[in-house]
Amino acid sequence: MEKIRGFYIGRFQPYHYGHESVIKHIAEEVDEIVIGIGSAQLSHSPNNPFTAGERVLMVTHALEESVSLPFYVIPIEDIQRNALWVSHARSISPPFNEVYSSNPLVVRLFRESGTEVISPEMYERENYSGTEIRRRMLAGEDWQSLVPPVVAGVINETDGVRRLHDVSGSD
Amino acid sequence: MEKIRGFYIGRFQPYHYGHESVIKHIAEEVDEIVIGIGSAQLSHSPNNPFTAGERVLMVTHALEESVSLPFYVIPIEDIQRNALWVSHARSISPPFNEVYSSNPLVVRLFRESGTEVISPEMYERENYSGTEIRRRMLAGEDWQSLVPPVVAGVINETDGVRRLHDVSGSD
Amino acid sequence: MEKIRGFYIGRFQPYHYGHESVIKHIAEEVDEIVIGIGSAQLSHSPNNPFTAGERVLMVTHALEESVSLPFYVIPIEDIQRNALWVSHARSISPPFNEVYSSNPLVVRLFRESGTEVISPEMYERENYSGTEIRRRMLAGEDWQSLVPPVVAGVINETDGVRRLHDVSGSD
Amino acid sequence: MEKIRGFYIGRFQPYHYGHESVIKHIAEEVDEIVIGIGSAQLSHSPNNPFTAGERVLMVTHALEESVSLPFYVIPIEDIQRNALWVSHARSISPPFNEVYSSNPLVVRLFRESGTEVISPEMYERENYSGTEIRRRMLAGEDWQSLVPPVVAGVINETDGVRRLHDVSGSD
Amino acid sequence: MEKIRGFYIGRFQPYHYGHESVIKHIAEEVDEIVIGIGSAQLSHSPNNPFTAGERVLMVTHALEESVSLPFYVIPIEDIQRNALWVSHARSISPPFNEVYSSNPLVVRLFRESGTEVISPEMYERENYSGTEIRRRMLAGEDWQSLVPPVVAGVINETDGVRRLHDVSGSD
Amino acid sequence: MEKIRGFYIGRFQPYHYGHESVIKHIAEEVDEIVIGIGSAQLSHSPNNPFTAGERVLMVTHALEESVSLPFYVIPIEDIQRNALWVSHARSISPPFNEVYSSNPLVVRLFRESGTEVISPEMYERENYSGTEIRRRMLAGEDWQSLVPPVVAGVINETDGVRRLHDVSGSD
Repeated sequence: MEKIRGFYIGRFQPYHYGHESVIKHIAEEVDEIVIGIGSAQLSHSPNNPFTAGERVLMVTHALEESVSLPFYVIPIEDIQRNALWVSHARSISPPFNEVYSSNPLVVRLFRESGTEVISPEMYERENYSGTEIRRRMLAGEDWQSLVPPVVAGVINETDGVRRLHDVSGSD
Repeated sequence: MEKIRGFYIGRFQPYHYGHESVIKHIAEEVDEIVIGIGSAQLSHSPNNPFTAGERVLMVTHALEESVSLPFYVIPIEDIQRNALWVSHARSISPPFNEVYSSNPLVVRLFRESGTEVISPEMYERENYSGTEIRRRMLAGEDWQSLVPPVVAGVINETDGVRRLHDVSGSD
Repeated sequence: MEKIRGFYIGRFQPYHYGHESVIKHIAEEVDEIVIGIGSAQLSHSPNNPFTAGERVLMVTHALEESVSLPFYVIPIEDIQRNALWVSHARSISPPFNEVYSSNPLVVRLFRESGTEVISPEMYERENYSGTEIRRRMLAGEDWQSLVPPVVAGVINETDGVRRLHDVSGSD
Repeated sequence: MEKIRGFYIGRFQPYHYGHESVIKHIAEEVDEIVIGIGSAQLSHSPNNPFTAGERVLMVTHALEESVSLPFYVIPIEDIQRNALWVSHARSISPPFNEVYSSNPLVVRLFRESGTEVISPEMYERENYSGTEIRRRMLAGEDWQSLVPPVVAGVINETDGVRRLHDVSGSD
Repeated sequence: MEKIRGFYIGRFQPYHYGHESVIKHIAEEVDEIVIGIGSAQLSHSPNNPFTAGERVLMVTHALEESVSLPFYVIPIEDIQRNALWVSHARSISPPFNEVYSSNPLVVRLFRESGTEVISPEMYERENYSGTEIRRRMLAGEDWQSLVPPVVAGVINETDGVRRLHDVSGSD
Repeated sequence: MEKIRGFYIGRFQPYHYGHESVIKHIAEEVDEIVIGIGSAQLSHSPNNPFTAGERVLMVTHALEESVSLPFYVIPIEDIQRNALWVSHARSISPPFNEVYSSNPLVVRLFRESGTEVISPEMYERENYSGTEIRRRMLAGEDWQSLVPPVVAGVINETDGVRRLHDVSGSD
């Protein structure tokens, strides 16, 4: 019997419990997971404060604690040409046969390429979102409760909240 | 005490026992290893037949069998500007504090950036080389004995030898 | 006597009767027409749903029906450097000696390069515009009457309205 | 019954009777032809003297004289990533369902994407080749007999032989 | 004793007395100045009307009149990857050991690379800003008093106000 | 009377007395000189060991000693599209009205754009060449006598000969 390898992509700015709830759900249905770190080339901006390398670290540490099947964490740069994006993602990822995404563009692009896509619900989307977490970081509110402790650890080691303040031009 | 994370980069076209001997040696000196898949954008050419995704699969499966410490496998595209390469590699890899390389350019670029580099000896370099393995694939000679069985498995599943023949214009 | 070849550029997302009215007007004044498909690299987005190839098809079929002189349909990618755009357009188009455009940037760039530009009026610009057509597609209103039947045919064959819905995140 | 649209790609530096013999053969088997002008971004070099625009002109004029079915002439820039090339070519060309090529890489890439490829024989390949024609241009030998008269016309109008001399550093 | 070379970057769209006040201040503290012309690839747009070459001319002429120490004027293209920007700027500029900037992103990026940054106050920032000057150019108000006469000269020679009108689509 | 500004481009890997002889000759015929540092993005390779910034320094210091008219030193990255190169060079350089070059491609490209080019003789080309100087650096022979002392100074400060050895894989 062939192995089922599922693909899930996000920007993970930062990784949070919303991602975790989706990935745990996927983990019940596949043998292995490929996590794509989207917009890998972006960092040090208000919407994309963390580098791809920092995000690889967050995701890897978080998945080591929450899922027990094999996984791959792959930085994927934007390619600025939607019509080529599926080929791009497939060429730098281990081969996968199922795709999980709620992003309408990702869903459409995979469907046009002949790959069916499963759109999982994300848990409490209004709180568990990168936008909300970055907002709280800038406002000095609690954000740690929205991410796994190992992710908070990576952010603190890289002085991430201070970086977000600086690149947002706030103080 | 801070963790030591070592960085090792190769093109892995394909991964072979020469790489394994170096990585086992590194594994004795660090806590975690980051493996960079160099020239990640190249594939389907005589010198670079395999995609980054296929190489991620080879390296991951091989390391699962040969080392017991945590590792990260990161595709790294060429950037065509040597003076920026170190920043590029650092931005998409988890942070590392030791670099292992025998490539004179990699050594020089890291040294100019202030990072010391350790140049390990590679075991039987004349046989255990991607060039020799690709030559044997085209000549119909034994190449399987130069790579771990899991790597031969990935190559066979992706019809790799036939692809190499095709893109080399040989028959 | 030398042949007069006119150049006209648009994004054609999609091609509509406004374009047709301009092109018919140009056709009265030149011997041959070069149609540039602008922003050729864009597709699958709310403002640029169609690929360059689909737009080549729309324009070619439409011009076969509406003009009787020779024409060339050339996809032109954006170059992100305005100062180079005229050279870029000239290098991938058959040589032309007259330019028709109402786009202020295109007009300025050609003028600085020493080429005079003719700015034709577009017929009923408020209705015959890509923006209005894409709005109607999303709203489920009549858009077919704004484009030639062969263009509606191309859009329907490529499931274009559904694609626009999907990439717009609407339903 | 669905239309059969065939795709044929070449660099056409310049277009010659060898291309014509292949295209006439294809024309017997399809309803429409898409001609891709490969390496469209290259010009003014010893192996690629002509711009994409000049090559569009050569191919268009030559096909107007030699085939009677509809055709599209599409400049296609190199994308430097073989794994994405098929998606790239498909996104800027009208949709096609048959591919004709003798280039081993093109054949392989389309096959991996699930498209069958037909490899036509080229007539007297040793003479009817761009390499031979450019050699003759530099040597001052007869090259005109290897290309259709309309192609020789385009080359002469653009002072092509002198350009080839200049960029080859010969005199 | 080693020479102190200071680095200061701006877009200079156009160069104005605000820049001059900062540069005069820097000139008191260093031996040589490197002026980076940021976003060098941009021109002919409402926010970036002038080419890099025109800005080199403005800055060079202005500094010849206002400072008496050696200076270098270096066009620096954007690199679209913040994590690589410092390496990029350092690779095309003469080596510098002090950085002057009030841009929060530039400050942060240099600090993460281990370079301290001095943030000088800009004189009357609300008036002496490129945004205000371009607004006045479009409104037909006095802008000449905000820039050195040699800068106004460069702008007039290149028909700069007319260009700004044209690319802004105003009249 | 309008100012005559001459343009001269080289890679300057490194700057040597052959360049100086040409530039002194140009200086007799123009009011100002623009020096383009070609292939600005290349460094740390056997044929292009020095960064653009290091080359700006070499050229600036050398010209300060050998010519007495105003000059501009402009790094110019390759653009990989010959047909756009003249527009590219013009957009990042101060406007120039005379071009000096012996490079056949540069001569041809400027001529096609309508700019006449003057091809100066270079003094003792077989010795005064970057190729010869880099060969001598690797062979441990005298190279200092072929370059102005200030250039040798820049090379020594950046540990240039050692870098060339390292990136050449020699020892």
